[in-house]
Amino acid sequence: MLVNVERLNEFMEREGLDAVVATSPENVTYLSGYWALSQWIRRGPQTYVVWPAPGLGEPTIIASAGLLDLIADQDIWVEQIRRFGKFYVETADGQDLTDLERRQANLFELPDEGGPVEALIATLKGYGLEGGRIGFDEGGMPRGLEGKLRGELARADLRPAFELFRNVRAVKTPEEIRRLKCAANIAESSISAALALAKPGVTEREMGVAFHTRTVQEGALPVLGCIGFGKRSAMGNVQPSDQKLASGDVIRFDVGGRFQHYRADIARIACLGEPPAKVAQYHKALHAGVARAYEIIKPGASIADVFDEVVETVRREGLSHYRRSHVGHGIGLDGYDVPNLAPGSPGRFEEGMVLSVETPYYELGFAGLQVEDMVVVRSDHLESLMKTDGKLMII
Amino acid sequence: MLVNVERLNEFMEREGLDAVVATSPENVTYLSGYWALSQWIRRGPQTYVVWPAPGLGEPTIIASAGLLDLIADQDIWVEQIRRFGKFYVETADGQDLTDLERRQANLFELPDEGGPVEALIATLKGYGLEGGRIGFDEGGMPRGLEGKLRGELARADLRPAFELFRNVRAVKTPEEIRRLKCAANIAESSISAALALAKPGVTEREMGVAFHTRTVQEGALPVLGCIGFGKRSAMGNVQPSDQKLASGDVIRFDVGGRFQHYRADIARIACLGEPPAKVAQYHKALHAGVARAYEIIKPGASIADVFDEVVETVRREGLSHYRRSHVGHGIGLDGYDVPNLAPGSPGRFEEGMVLSVETPYYELGFAGLQVEDMVVVRSDHLESLMKTDGKLMII
Repeated sequence: MLVNVERLNEFMEREGLDAVVATSPENVTYLSGYWALSQWIRRGPQTYVVWPAPGLGEPTIIASAGLLDLIADQDIWVEQIRRFGKFYVETADGQDLTDLERRQANLFELPDEGGPVEALIATLKGYGLEGGRIGFDEGGMPRGLEGKLRGELARADLRPAFELFRNVRAVKTPEEIRRLKCAANIAESSISAALALAKPGVTEREMGVAFHTRTVQEGALPVLGCIGFGKRSAMGNVQPSDQKLASGDVIRFDVGGRFQHYRADIARIACLGEPPAKVAQYHKALHAGVARAYEIIKPGASIADVFDEVVETVRREGLSHYRRSHVGHGIGLDGYDVPNLAPGSPGRFEEGMVLSVETPYYELGFAGLQVEDMVVVRSDHLESLMKTDGKLMII
Repeated sequence: MLVNVERLNEFMEREGLDAVVATSPENVTYLSGYWALSQWIRRGPQTYVVWPAPGLGEPTIIASAGLLDLIADQDIWVEQIRRFGKFYVETADGQDLTDLERRQANLFELPDEGGPVEALIATLKGYGLEGGRIGFDEGGMPRGLEGKLRGELARADLRPAFELFRNVRAVKTPEEIRRLKCAANIAESSISAALALAKPGVTEREMGVAFHTRTVQEGALPVLGCIGFGKRSAMGNVQPSDQKLASGDVIRFDVGGRFQHYRADIARIACLGEPPAKVAQYHKALHAGVARAYEIIKPGASIADVFDEVVETVRREGLSHYRRSHVGHGIGLDGYDVPNLAPGSPGRFEEGMVLSVETPYYELGFAGLQVEDMVVVRSDHLESLMKTDGKLMII
């Protein structure tokens, strides 16, 4: 199970919520395990999960008829389903159906509740919540549908819950951590595959293809592929071009795909041949910043203090003019989960948070350098999810 | 250039709009060529394009400081840029900057306007539109920011324009058609790569990896990869599993990646060995439906009539109980663009529309069969963007 039930119930109780409604793809998958294809690859298709407070009943998925097959075929822990919309599926005459086919046939026999909002209203009424206080993830429902929902549920108190979901998702469950570790390791393996091409004349684009190919071959999907050579590596979001690799060039990777819906975001630096002294010195300082984060991040530590100490470490260790707006962020179903490791952040680290901790540095006319590790906050230490150590690689 | 300027201006004039504001990633890229990485891979990051009516000035991109590097490095035809937010980039001492670096340095010197909405308000005021009638793409801006915008621009008439953008995008420009053809052909090539593995015992997952690998190698990114064997092919959204291929099995592909931001969505059917008679008969009928679409889709033809005639053709040609909710859809930056080839649709085809025309059929306990071609409506005929003909492939 992905959802952190205890934490969700705790947040709901604190805000006095009778239910929460997920509408964004990340939150739907998080609450139910249901990955509703078209909702993930487009903006517009509607899928919801209603999660009532303890004692008010079992949660419900609200799904489009055209996506019911995936409910039958996926590992989903929410058992109540409501269906809206038409979709034509026939059943072969005189055939014994497999379990998978029978589950589908049963789902296709569910009544069509009209549209997604009609189904959502019927669900909330089914829990007796026409006048309830409901945490509503406002991230995935278009304005028009929300207006209709509020019109029909005039007695309910619908409160924005997109941020509540982000805060619940900040502390990961063991299954989430397993997926995030796989995602991180696939990204590392994909960097190795790209670096196997490193020689003068290879292009950023060729390395990008090698990177994403390995990601696909290890069962993930490409998402982030910033790969830049030499001076182009100074672009924070550098996209692979026909730029050719030359001796002495920095190769910067800020990369990561999606494995079982969970994101990776890591960074590594290589150099073709002996690195210029400035590269080696600056990289060592950036690496020391991340190493310091390993020493000081633990449950209860102040996020603002960690930011200050990481930046200060980079400055002390050889990059005295270092400036940053953040030194990392949570990661999960979204590439930027809570928390944000930024100056003045009021929060504290909690056990089970998964983070991308990073010290990027961009200098036009020189290069971009970056160390970014994925880590999990354990009760008494920071555990790396990485197989490689983030030191400057000399190819 | 991607945007169909003539059509956009025509729609704006018809609705009496002084400007349109793009907020969704598809519409930002469409109006400007700007692909703002984090806006595409997450929900939340804000990028806008303001496009004033003719005579009111040149369009403006509103971009986060952290994404300005991509403006410098991409082929973008909008020249006015406003920037919001902080981002630290240094410049090497005593170095001659390249043109790319100088463009970046200039962008990073733009004043920080605070947040995205502040920058948007300043832009609209710059055009003298504090009291203007503005088509507002409501698809990409969170509720809170929209509330702020409406509060600060109380005299302006902000009208929903997400649908206006969809309707403008329905008729493609030559550069869009070029990209869509490439996307379609990469999907076909990726099917060939997957089918190269076809023999008893290969799994859906192995074919999925082969499919996406070829997509990456041809310069696209994986998006849609429904690949199912035998009875599993009856699931409309079938995701590759460990199911093994057996002799006589149908292999259904409903697939397509993204090439230079443009989507493919095509379908093909293969059979391992001689197909059962029912497979051959039904597939032939479905293929005849798509072939009929080639004969009757032209500018001015009624979409509802084409739907009826395609379904009728499938019924007449051997699948007498055929039922469908649509037989295709537009395709472009979004996988489902306007129009929708559905029963009773009030619209007519226009020259330059790019469509995925399809006749899927799903039967539990039997199989799923489908023909789906990408096509472009020309002045006097329907042009295929495909290299393959959609007939049943016997492997």
